Amino acid sequence: MNTPLVLTDFLDRAVRLYGEKPAIIDEEGTRYTYHEINKRVNQLSHGLASLGVEKGDRVAYLAPNTLEMYEGFYGIFQVGGIMVSLNTRLKPDDYLYILNHSGSKILFVDHELISLIEPIIDQLKTVEQIIIHGASEAKGDFIAYPKWLVSQPDTAFPRADLDENDTATLLYTSGTTGKPKGVMLTHRNNYLHAMSSMHHIRVSDKDTLMHILPMFHVNGWGSPFYYTANGSTQVMQRYMDSASILNKVKKYGVTVMHMAPTVLNGIIDKFMETKPVIEQDVRIVLAGAAPPQAFIKQVEEEIGWEFYQVYGMTESSPLTLASYMSSEDGDLTGDDYYYMKAKAGYEMIGTKVRVVNDMHQDVANDGKEVGEVIVKGNGVMKGYWKNEEETNRTIVDGWLHTGDMGTIDERGRINIVDRKKDIIISGGENISSIEVEGVFYEHPAVQEVAIIATPHEKWGETPHAIVVLRKGHIVTEQELIDFSREKLAHFKCPKAITFLDELPKTASGKILKVQLRELV
Amino acid sequence: MNTPLVLTDFLDRAVRLYGEKPAIIDEEGTRYTYHEINKRVNQLSHGLASLGVEKGDRVAYLAPNTLEMYEGFYGIFQVGGIMVSLNTRLKPDDYLYILNHSGSKILFVDHELISLIEPIIDQLKTVEQIIIHGASEAKGDFIAYPKWLVSQPDTAFPRADLDENDTATLLYTSGTTGKPKGVMLTHRNNYLHAMSSMHHIRVSDKDTLMHILPMFHVNGWGSPFYYTANGSTQVMQRYMDSASILNKVKKYGVTVMHMAPTVLNGIIDKFMETKPVIEQDVRIVLAGAAPPQAFIKQVEEEIGWEFYQVYGMTESSPLTLASYMSSEDGDLTGDDYYYMKAKAGYEMIGTKVRVVNDMHQDVANDGKEVGEVIVKGNGVMKGYWKNEEETNRTIVDGWLHTGDMGTIDERGRINIVDRKKDIIISGGENISSIEVEGVFYEHPAVQEVAIIATPHEKWGETPHAIVVLRKGHIVTEQELIDFSREKLAHFKCPKAITFLDELPKTASGKILKVQLRELV
Repeated sequence: MNTPLVLTDFLDRAVRLYGEKPAIIDEEGTRYTYHEINKRVNQLSHGLASLGVEKGDRVAYLAPNTLEMYEGFYGIFQVGGIMVSLNTRLKPDDYLYILNHSGSKILFVDHELISLIEPIIDQLKTVEQIIIHGASEAKGDFIAYPKWLVSQPDTAFPRADLDENDTATLLYTSGTTGKPKGVMLTHRNNYLHAMSSMHHIRVSDKDTLMHILPMFHVNGWGSPFYYTANGSTQVMQRYMDSASILNKVKKYGVTVMHMAPTVLNGIIDKFMETKPVIEQDVRIVLAGAAPPQAFIKQVEEEIGWEFYQVYGMTESSPLTLASYMSSEDGDLTGDDYYYMKAKAGYEMIGTKVRVVNDMHQDVANDGKEVGEVIVKGNGVMKGYWKNEEETNRTIVDGWLHTGDMGTIDERGRINIVDRKKDIIISGGENISSIEVEGVFYEHPAVQEVAIIATPHEKWGETPHAIVVLRKGHIVTEQELIDFSREKLAHFKCPKAITFLDELPKTASGKILKVQLRELV
Repeated sequence: MNTPLVLTDFLDRAVRLYGEKPAIIDEEGTRYTYHEINKRVNQLSHGLASLGVEKGDRVAYLAPNTLEMYEGFYGIFQVGGIMVSLNTRLKPDDYLYILNHSGSKILFVDHELISLIEPIIDQLKTVEQIIIHGASEAKGDFIAYPKWLVSQPDTAFPRADLDENDTATLLYTSGTTGKPKGVMLTHRNNYLHAMSSMHHIRVSDKDTLMHILPMFHVNGWGSPFYYTANGSTQVMQRYMDSASILNKVKKYGVTVMHMAPTVLNGIIDKFMETKPVIEQDVRIVLAGAAPPQAFIKQVEEEIGWEFYQVYGMTESSPLTLASYMSSEDGDLTGDDYYYMKAKAGYEMIGTKVRVVNDMHQDVANDGKEVGEVIVKGNGVMKGYWKNEEETNRTIVDGWLHTGDMGTIDERGRINIVDRKKDIIISGGENISSIEVEGVFYEHPAVQEVAIIATPHEKWGETPHAIVVLRKGHIVTEQELIDFSREKLAHFKCPKAITFLDELPKTASGKILKVQLRELV
């Protein structure tokens, strides 16, 4: 008997089995049980319905990781609406485009972010109401969320009749070039992604997750769904502040955190500086870039946290690969172990992954031949919102083309070597910027590095390094180049280095190479 | 993007990621890698196609846990056929009914079980070919499997176009009354059941499963699917022989076994007698009856294996409840811990479970009020094969009626107190046979016990105990009755006891109370 795979099932289960357990610990440390959350979710649904939101309507959120953002998902789903979660690091014009393109009817904005919206309010074509999280009083046409919410009934909401193929979330990819594209993920996409992710990440009701990765970033990789299904406690974290994060890990007994490498970088530094005593086991789930081995080693050996590398993209819900140590990897130790763990990993259950050349043929399973990573599975999006052309360009013959270049070894372990557009081609040789970055990270003075291509008369392109030094460290351009030439084939080594105080990044912590290329 | 949830995906993944790993260790200790298994599966599919098997055709298996039985699932699925796995403990007339009712086209029989089929061969209406596993030479019209299989090409088989709602397996429930009913489980049923089960049972590629629970019994609770998806090694076990099982646990490093309580009972006895040194962690997954607490305590404290209790039925793929220790159970120790662990447990992710009274209203969440357990979810069968009447009687308003009576507590933990028809009603009071059996199991002389109702002039029914004593123990009827009266309300205590050398059981080890009732 088929019952539709819908995300409301996950909160329902938590309410039935973990009703009196803390579901959310908000920024102020207030605890809300799953029963209490459910009541707030009901209030939100009633409120949305009273504003005329109906099945299929888009409801936009501009908020960091807050209680209000979390309950937004389930409040919208009950009405049958679509959650449009906006990246908080965009520019007003981006929001204007996304809100009009998605045809969002209601917009929820965190009280600290109103200034991002104010300049474009007059140009919004479909937004009928703006509601401010954390506002104590209504202001002009804006509704103050706290008072509005509690004025709604908290009784069970008569749910929209949902099909598993209905779109649940609409996520605009930041799009380093061109206009943002709206990724439609259905209930089925998110649900099946959750089932596989909870298994591979070994989620349980013993977990306390801290939401560090923004929930607007691919639904926090789907975490508001699979931690809820398991009845885990979820701690909200508004800012990427390492000291505050470490305090909360200790205070709330956090056992698992998802994040991007650059965020972890800051946490490691703060940890080594302050050496807090954290007694519980902690898992770090990382994605967004292949981490240097030295980095993983530091997390596991010096801090004592377990390190998980995963790989994915918005268009695949997102997780596709998990870098667990396979039973066939043998008892690896030391550098061999970290070498394997740093790779993107194996296809997760429910997903098929191939690495193909330009002719769409599988590359050799030798860990060497480079091709594009393509993905098939129920996590793959329904398509781009109102953009059939891009959908057809991205999903070809049922396979999602990730634009990431990788290798696959004899046992199916995939290593991402670069974004398709980030590969450096020098004298006809492919250079993986990730490989070169890995060597730079081994130097004690290097805090962050990005390798990009610069044009070269003779070689076509050559690698160029952009480096951020650790505080208190001094090193010359030549010293770093020499260091890299000791460890790499010379054609792979940068010929010049630019030093910066920090690197430009996306909201999720990915380094924006596109902006760096404009610098040099 | 939807891709159909089909079971062939699971073997495909294992072949891609674990191709050179032992997939199956057969009865003789021969190891077959996932690549080798895949070739045999391809040979089987080619062979089936050459015999005219097409999408939707039924292919029956009468075999214990063997390599041949395992590969049968995937060989049939590739052709789009339906696996009809027959319980090996039935009578020839039962096979006649099931084979004709299912309209099976091909029948595979283990060489040791031919005599079960011979008496009815002339009356088979649809079976076109019988193929004998383990036969060295063709015999009359029978094909000898080993030679036939290797004569087929092992190249990739052009797969049937499968929909996730196509029936994958057809399992006839042993039916203590009436004709056996054919439970249709679709690819989607089995697939989603596998995703939830692998998560709750914490299956991984580090696991070595020993197939003790017969695969004909609800597909070994789906184990050939979820252990395959994870690339686990699977050890075949033909007989329920405790010494042989313990030898293999040690020899092959088995980490997990699914079984019925009575089988575990034998293994515990043998373990305590021989005290083998087993170094790896072992999990025991048990279902089929609520185990006495003393039993779980022995497994965890004396043997040192981890104990999982699960609950389900053929009609729900089968697993529905898992008795894990919830984060909300607190740090229970001693008897409190075993008391909780002995219950059927919490609804697994993807399944909704209610306990309802005769008016179809939820009973109180007090752990006391008894009602029928009803289930909704994607594990619930498509229906009974050619038996709409029974389907409609069993699935009402989308809820599967299990016929099991239970209670549910304030946190959703369900305790099965009896089969609906096994409840004893004495002087208007409900008596749970399971509760009374639990007390008997505390007596050191009792190896096995079943409590059944006997008619009584004054009280309507009274409980009657059927007891199997441990070897070397002597105890009188009166001593056992007195023992139970010390621990139970007197109306719950048996007034008479029958001693037997063994209890009649189903193939999966469930005690057949129906037969016991005829004895007394």
